[in-house]
Amino acid sequence: MFDNHINLKTIQEAHKLIRKYAHWTPIFTSKSINELANAEIYFKCENFQKVGAFKFRGAVNAIFSLAPEDAKKGVATHSSGNHAQAVALAAKLRGIPAHIVMPSNSPNVKKAAVAGYGADIIYCEPTQEARERTLENVVADTGATFIHPYNDYKIIAGQGTAALEMMKDVPGLEIVLAPVSGGGLMSGTCIAVAALSPKTTLIGVEPELADDAYRSLKENRIIPSTYPDTIADGLRMSLGTKTFPILKKYLDRIITVSDEQTITAMRYIWERMKIIIEPSSAVPLAAILSGKYDFSGKKIGVILSGGNVDLEHLPF
Amino acid sequence: MFDNHINLKTIQEAHKLIRKYAHWTPIFTSKSINELANAEIYFKCENFQKVGAFKFRGAVNAIFSLAPEDAKKGVATHSSGNHAQAVALAAKLRGIPAHIVMPSNSPNVKKAAVAGYGADIIYCEPTQEARERTLENVVADTGATFIHPYNDYKIIAGQGTAALEMMKDVPGLEIVLAPVSGGGLMSGTCIAVAALSPKTTLIGVEPELADDAYRSLKENRIIPSTYPDTIADGLRMSLGTKTFPILKKYLDRIITVSDEQTITAMRYIWERMKIIIEPSSAVPLAAILSGKYDFSGKKIGVILSGGNVDLEHLPF
Repeated sequence: MFDNHINLKTIQEAHKLIRKYAHWTPIFTSKSINELANAEIYFKCENFQKVGAFKFRGAVNAIFSLAPEDAKKGVATHSSGNHAQAVALAAKLRGIPAHIVMPSNSPNVKKAAVAGYGADIIYCEPTQEARERTLENVVADTGATFIHPYNDYKIIAGQGTAALEMMKDVPGLEIVLAPVSGGGLMSGTCIAVAALSPKTTLIGVEPELADDAYRSLKENRIIPSTYPDTIADGLRMSLGTKTFPILKKYLDRIITVSDEQTITAMRYIWERMKIIIEPSSAVPLAAILSGKYDFSGKKIGVILSGGNVDLEHLPF
Repeated sequence: MFDNHINLKTIQEAHKLIRKYAHWTPIFTSKSINELANAEIYFKCENFQKVGAFKFRGAVNAIFSLAPEDAKKGVATHSSGNHAQAVALAAKLRGIPAHIVMPSNSPNVKKAAVAGYGADIIYCEPTQEARERTLENVVADTGATFIHPYNDYKIIAGQGTAALEMMKDVPGLEIVLAPVSGGGLMSGTCIAVAALSPKTTLIGVEPELADDAYRSLKENRIIPSTYPDTIADGLRMSLGTKTFPILKKYLDRIITVSDEQTITAMRYIWERMKIIIEPSSAVPLAAILSGKYDFSGKKIGVILSGGNVDLEHLPF
């Protein structure tokens, strides 16, 4: 029933729209990580995307799809970080105001970046309830359009463009993994991959401390996240009414990983590949190295979701 | 007079020889760093080279150029880090022994990497005198060939292949910058760039704390470095008899930068470009941002020499 709203065609249209603004990010590989994993892993480097994360894709698609009369009143959102930056920059590029509600415990580097794009920041308590209430007030005051971080078909289509590029650059992937938070990236990835390569296995990955999607799929209802204190600070959201049915239809499974496994995987990527990724980006490699599924000998695509870390608060 | 030993042709031959083993590394750019510098900067990413540094190019060229009867007795060298890893891996690839003399204060990550390539490590005091004496003993004991870190035309030709690739990937560079330590990278870069683009300005960069090449060129004699404690731990060597005349002929100037400027530049590259570089790699950007030369509006090539840092001892 979501097929009318989000499908390969809407993702391809999103890709056409965002190409002017977003990078076609490169694929990186690492011989030593492949040896470690006993697999052939292709990393889609969304840490090199504008604003340092895949979130820019969805934000550009959503904001540049707004009708001019809506756009001129601006956009608003709540986000723990990368979506905030993405909306701020996409709004700046379209020349419209952005009002960003951020939890007070967001990493400093993310707060500074949002401010740097000229957005109006409104701080709130770090609970989903406080974020939503504050956002409602902002929207009521300004008439801005709410750009949801993930429960929005334009956002999902935008995020799906990363997988679209990856499937073009690396044919024949047997497994594709991405992190799951609200499910926007994973939903877009599912739709794109399933349409282009129906036999590819789709696996979502979550921190054990934020396993609400794992439990939601198991119990067949959306179980809200309670803002757990995982090191993967980008993976604290709950699934939405639009992402849940997509993951339910397409995901083969969700693997959960400990924060310790995430930090180890993050460190491998920093040391062996010489690229900076944030903890949330490391959960797929953590899953591959966890022994919880047989990845051996497989050709695997991994979406490295972003690279925004606070260099003064590294986990190693 | 060095022209018979090192020229565009020997660099091109080196490139042919090493292509089987070394990466043709990518060029990265950053809109925000360009805005900061008011220039158009192309970064040649040798941090993505095998062993995480350009040093692999020279080591492969030198080691694979050895006659079989010499090669079988193995190779030996002294190095504070990246050259050690490079010789260790190149020797492993050729299937011959490597004996590496390392100063006891080398970064842990570099010690571990050398050991990981199966090389024999001999530790010594962190002075040039101790390194040379220990190395002489090793060579006397084993009959291994000494692979000098920079004062060797095969090494210089190998290092010059990075600039060769950069000039091919980015036509029309007006200025090329590289860090200067013993002068191997800068010499190879000078020969390649001057031959392919005679009008391009060549600039070397050194830490203020290790400005021996700056003083050597000024006084027209090799002034030895005294192993200064700069954050740029890869830039502590003195020029050699083979590199000094090349730099004297081709370098437009040497710019020196403070460790503080280096750390600031390093942080910009980490945060804006999401790539990991070591402090020695950051000195060219530090020079561009220093105001000591007018880089504004220029199309600039920078060789990012390597990415081997100890994540537990970061300068920020």
